[in-house]
This record gives sequence, C-alpha cells and structure tokens, in this order.
Amino acid sequence: MADDSRVTITAIAREAGVSVPTVSRVLNGRSDVAPDTRERVEQLLHARGYRRRQSRSRPAAGLIDLVFNDLDSPWAVEILRGVEEVGHAAGAGTVVSALHRRTGPTRQWLESVRDRSTDGVILVTSDLEPTLRAELHRLDAPAVAVDPAGTPALDVPTVGATNWAGGLTATEHLLSLGHRRIGLIAGPPRLLCSRARLDGYRAGLESAGIAVDDALIAPGDFYHESGFRGADALLDLPDPPTAIFAASDQMAFGVYEAVRRRGARVPDDVSVVGFDDLPEARWASPPLTTVRQPLADMGRVAARTVLQLAAGQAPDSRRVELATELVRRESTAPLGR
Amino acid sequence: MADDSRVTITAIAREAGVSVPTVSRVLNGRSDVAPDTRERVEQLLHARGYRRRQSRSRPAAGLIDLVFNDLDSPWAVEILRGVEEVGHAAGAGTVVSALHRRTGPTRQWLESVRDRSTDGVILVTSDLEPTLRAELHRLDAPAVAVDPAGTPALDVPTVGATNWAGGLTATEHLLSLGHRRIGLIAGPPRLLCSRARLDGYRAGLESAGIAVDDALIAPGDFYHESGFRGADALLDLPDPPTAIFAASDQMAFGVYEAVRRRGARVPDDVSVVGFDDLPEARWASPPLTTVRQPLADMGRVAARTVLQLAAGQAPDSRRVELATELVRRESTAPLGR
Repeated sequence: MADDSRVTITAIAREAGVSVPTVSRVLNGRSDVAPDTRERVEQLLHARGYRRRQSRSRPAAGLIDLVFNDLDSPWAVEILRGVEEVGHAAGAGTVVSALHRRTGPTRQWLESVRDRSTDGVILVTSDLEPTLRAELHRLDAPAVAVDPAGTPALDVPTVGATNWAGGLTATEHLLSLGHRRIGLIAGPPRLLCSRARLDGYRAGLESAGIAVDDALIAPGDFYHESGFRGADALLDLPDPPTAIFAASDQMAFGVYEAVRRRGARVPDDVSVVGFDDLPEARWASPPLTTVRQPLADMGRVAARTVLQLAAGQAPDSRRVELATELVRRESTAPLGR
Repeated sequence: MADDSRVTITAIAREAGVSVPTVSRVLNGRSDVAPDTRERVEQLLHARGYRRRQSRSRPAAGLIDLVFNDLDSPWAVEILRGVEEVGHAAGAGTVVSALHRRTGPTRQWLESVRDRSTDGVILVTSDLEPTLRAELHRLDAPAVAVDPAGTPALDVPTVGATNWAGGLTATEHLLSLGHRRIGLIAGPPRLLCSRARLDGYRAGLESAGIAVDDALIAPGDFYHESGFRGADALLDLPDPPTAIFAASDQMAFGVYEAVRRRGARVPDDVSVVGFDDLPEARWASPPLTTVRQPLADMGRVAARTVLQLAAGQAPDSRRVELATELVRRESTAPLGR
C-alpha cells in the first residue's frame, strides 16, 4: 500500500485507527480534531504519499467559490480582486455568490456548489450562520474564511487582520499630533474585531498616561449613520473631543457629515481617523487618514490556502493575521493648528 | 428532419442556404448578419424546433462568465450584484474575471473559458480589445456586453444607459435652481457616452435660451484627479460657474476637493451634480446629487439576455438602454442661497 499512488482515505483511516471523516477533516484543515490525532494522520498522509486528487474520481474543477453574506459590503470588490488574481494564476475561475436575504439560502447554495464540483470555498463573513457552518462539514471541499471581524472559533482556517495593533496605531497617531481628548466610535461589541480595536485605543491612551474617559466612547455598528450619530453625541459633550477615531471608514464619513452640518471643518476643527482604507477614503474630501486593512492581500492568502488544501497539503497556519498600517492623508492635523 | 428533436445547425444551414458559422452567429445574437438572412434563419430555427442544448454533446455548464477590464472600477460590484442575482435564480454560478494588465490576457482567458464550458459571457467594458472582439467570434458561447460607455458597433447584444437624457436632466435641475453659469467637466471624447452627456448638457442650456460657453466646458477622463483639475480651471475663470456638472461621480468628488481647498463650500458656494450614483455618493459630505445609472439593473438585463441566448432564444433587442434618473441629495442649492 505504501508506495502505491492509489493511497485512499480509507486506508489512511484504517492505519491511523481513526474514522474516514476524521481523515477528511484533517485534509480540509478543520480544527475539530485532537492535536495528537491530527499529527498521526498528517504523518501517515505524508509517509504514504497521499494526494487528494488521485483519490478522487473527478478532476480538479478549476473553480474556487467565493461566498459573501451580501454584495453590498464595500469590502467585497477588494477581497474579490485578491482571490481572482491568485485563482487566475493557478488556472482557477472564481465563482462569486451572495447568500444574503435569500429563502433557504444555505441549502440551495450548497447544492449548486456540489453540482459544479468546486475545488474549494472561501467564505467572507462576519456572521457565519450556524446552518452553513454545519453544512460545510458535509461538503467534500476545503473551506477557508476571510474574516475581517475576528469571529471566534471558526472551524476552518481563517485570514484576518491585526485589529488591536490597528486601534493602537490610530490612537498613537492622534496623540503624536498633540490630541488628548480623543473620541472613539466603536464597532458592534459582539464582534471580536470591535473589541480588539477598542482595546488598542485604550492601550494607546494608557501608554501615554491618559485615563480612558468612557464618555468619549460612542457606540456604533460600522455603518455611516452610526458614525454620524456618534459624532453628534461626542461633539455635544461639554468638553468635546478634538479628534475622533472611527472604527470603520463608513463611520468616519458619517463623522465628516456631522462636522459639516455644524458648519465646522475636518481637520481644522476635528481630526478624524478611520479604519479599513476603502477605495473611497482616497476620494473623500478631505482625503481620509485611516488604518489600512489589506483586504486584497487577505483575499490572496485565502485563495492560496484553499488551493493548498485542494492539493492535499496542510495549510501553513490555521489562523493568519495580516498587518494593518496607518495611511496618513489630510483628515488629521496638529491640535490647535 | 422537421419533427426530429436532433435538429442540427448543419441541417438548418443547408436548408437556409447559408454557412454553419452564419447560423451560429444568428443563434448567438451577433449583428454581422444581413437582416433578411437573419430572418430566414430564425424562422427555420423556430419552424424546425431547434434547441441549442440538444445539438450539443455537453450539458449546460451552469456557469456565466462575467469579465471586467479590471476590478478597480467602482462600477464592478454593482454590476456583479445584478448578474449574480439573476444567475443564481437560474441555477447558474457567476465566474468573475479581470483582464487588465495581464500578459497574453485574452488568449489565456479564452482558453480557461473554453475549458470550463461556460454557458455565456458578459463583458463589462468601455474599451473592448480588438483581439478579444475577434476571438469572441470563435468562442462557442453567446456573449453580451454591459456597456455604460456606449461603444459603437459592438458585435454582440449590449445593455447601456440613457446618457443623453441623463446629461439633459442634470442640466435642467441646475437651471431650475436658478443657475445660469453652469460648468461641465466632460468624459473622454472618444467614448460615445461622453459625447451623449455633453450633448444633453448643451440641449438643456439651449432649451433655456442660454448660449453654450465653451470656456465652461473642461476636459476630463472620468477619474478623480481630472475632476479636481477641471474644477480648479473653471473656478479660476474671471466669471466662474456657480454650478458644475461632472460627468462622473469620481470627478464630482474631485470637484468637492477643489472647492474645499479654496476654503469654499458645496453647495453654498458651488452646486455640484455627478453621474453614476456609486454607493459612495450617498456617503459623501455633502451627499451628492447625481444622475443614477442603474448598474445592477444593467447586470440583471445582461444576465437574462445571455441566458436567453444560451437557451437558443433570440434576444429581445440587440441594444437596450435603461433609463437614468436624477437623485437629489444635498450638493445642489438655489443660486444665491
């Protein structure tokens, strides 16, 4: 069996003393396998020269499925760009789907994925439906999540960004310009990325010896309107902030609008930092200083990972976080300029 | 032969006295067939009960190819949304590709399309490469172009928007607010859509009895920077415009930035109208009044057309233009407000 090119999952499972689904989960990079079992299975797969495609009756489909909750997200096209580029270079087409607001979406989508024999699935999601999560187990294709939101305990390899470091960098930038009253418009608290950005903001203030003032933290949901309302609330304070860090670009644009409606100006009256670096951050007036999430790079890494899995290789890592970085434009200015 | 379900293109060609490629061109909705030939072939296809899929050895692939020049375009995700929706409802996945800046892009892309047996191709393009145009003829799949730019004489059914009417509407809106010195930042003159928008602007002025002043027309290329430069040039005139119609939203955002840098305000000092209604028009500060192109609808119509062609039906029309409409937000105000 050992030197046969027809090594099967069944044979590996028998030799490892585990079930076939367990070998399948190891092959697909799932996390719900005990570490020692995983190691034993991986060693056997390697030693026996197992190759995913050789054990399947169908050839590689030449297709990667890229699945969004919906295509309204301003992120979508950035991530798509990265996935498409890597897929194309590997000779795989990128099939784009949206699950949002469909009746019986998950089951219908899974059926069409099965019908066209995808090589792998990339999920872009901040909220993975429990149904989808369960069904993914039954799909005979590897899956990877691009997960800017930091969903905990996803059962597939994930690609995210360094949210805590991003929050810290944004806050340090405003501190370096002399700001001491720095407002934050936070993201939804149920998302880990929101908490990480908030903690980065707190860490930045505390390192500078500034006590965190809870009155300066406004709730938000990443959308424009909540940035607008949050800024209004902060600017109505008796001792308002001179700078606002909005935990998404969309909310930062809402801050712009709140400032404009008061007859004030960014950055003359209020400095603003966003988070994301959507393409429109460059075209905003003034151009927005923001923390860049490398969305296209996240798409590239996800595509490479899913292709690795499809080729029967283990992923480099089950959780990758790509670095965020501050992009300085014109929405921030020294205090009292 | 007549009542046989295995009616072939060859048989139709013989009966019509034309070549097989000619029948194929009629089936794929191409325009380079003489009208009387087309009619004869279509009548025979109908009379003989020809069905595209029955004459092919392979089943419907369940895939639509959606091809962009590049995925940087702010349009991309809007059009994708419409195509994906219709494709999904018909059980077809949407494969997204970008051709931009690749070496040997066309041939490589065409090969991968052939390999995966697409049901049809939707091209989103303002500049269709001659190579691609030629190769499309050889591809055994119907093609449709979503063509916001109004490319002349595309050899496939196209879906566009009413550019002339849009230019007229934008201008009439500014006239109704009392503006008389209305600047235009035009699109690239080689694109028909630019000329149509410019002519709509001229028609609006002329209907109002206002002579067109060529000094008020600045050149642009639809991108941000040209809007910025165009606005700077117009606002430097001895008798500057009180309102500017930018022939794209991106250029309108450039106008915003030129106005801001002068310490002036939109709409207090200058009214601005854009063209496109990109999602970011809503989030601009102030929210942008603009001429809406129904990009998602254009994607929907293109997807329905390509699926019709794939099913062996003639398209409803070889050139469809969907209506543009003015979306009034806060970037325009009465003159002298």
